[in-house]
Amino acid sequence: MRILGIDPGLAIVGYSILDVEGNRMKAANYGVIETASTMDFPDRLKFLYEELNLIIKKYKPDEVAIEELFFNKNVKTAIKVGHARGVEILSASMNGLEIYEYTPLQIKNAITGYGRAEKNQIQEMVKILLNLSEIPKPDDAADALAVAITHFHSLKHKEEFILR
Amino acid sequence: MRILGIDPGLAIVGYSILDVEGNRMKAANYGVIETASTMDFPDRLKFLYEELNLIIKKYKPDEVAIEELFFNKNVKTAIKVGHARGVEILSASMNGLEIYEYTPLQIKNAITGYGRAEKNQIQEMVKILLNLSEIPKPDDAADALAVAITHFHSLKHKEEFILR
Repeated sequence: MRILGIDPGLAIVGYSILDVEGNRMKAANYGVIETASTMDFPDRLKFLYEELNLIIKKYKPDEVAIEELFFNKNVKTAIKVGHARGVEILSASMNGLEIYEYTPLQIKNAITGYGRAEKNQIQEMVKILLNLSEIPKPDDAADALAVAITHFHSLKHKEEFILR
Repeated sequence: MRILGIDPGLAIVGYSILDVEGNRMKAANYGVIETASTMDFPDRLKFLYEELNLIIKKYKPDEVAIEELFFNKNVKTAIKVGHARGVEILSASMNGLEIYEYTPLQIKNAITGYGRAEKNQIQEMVKILLNLSEIPKPDDAADALAVAITHFHSLKHKEEFILR
């Protein structure tokens, strides 16, 4: 099975393609989609939507795992990123894919077994779990791998985090 | 010129089709798109996107005016509605339309000349300005007419509120 992991965002969206079989997993690809703040907001949404559609058409994932928004103190920013995440979910939904979402806490627990793990610990574990020679860069791509691994983990444990 | 007005939302989205020429305006149609809270969230986004696409294809507006999100104390709700508004903006953007956004304050000022107008005053003015026999129902449809009228008003005054 192939999982598309998404670390949602407006300026930068991390994505990962994770192939899983039995207990094994392999990163088929990972990267980021970026939109410049100089672009008009509707054009940024359109660009993210079209790029994600292309990734889905190219890699044909079976399921999608997306991180929940962590909302910090800046509500205005959180709402803007919410717009982008809506478009990212739409892309998966328009392509007929089931979408699962995971909180940062669930991801930390799944990857390190420890809910208070630091970012660099997560990234180090992602590197080890996927047998990569280096920590995936940038952070958003590593986070997208982490959420895909979390989904694989929850599938193995038959937990259900489908987005409703 | 034909303006599509949108009162953004997740459970209910108001829309209006306003035809303007010189100093005259006429409501060609208005209504709401609704999604049940029993639907899965990605399906609600998909439904809103597809319905708005249909409205745009049917009425072929030239420009779109959308209300800015008023974010109350419930950040979680505001972010959810932000997801939906992102999809609503995307629909306009994918159809090649320019999108203008207006705050509740701008709308109140444009419709009544008074920034602290009550909801029923706005609705009464919408009815009078458009020569309707009754106040448009539900509120979301009336709000969608109000934002379209606001856009017409700003065009006449050569003000620019394009969404960037």
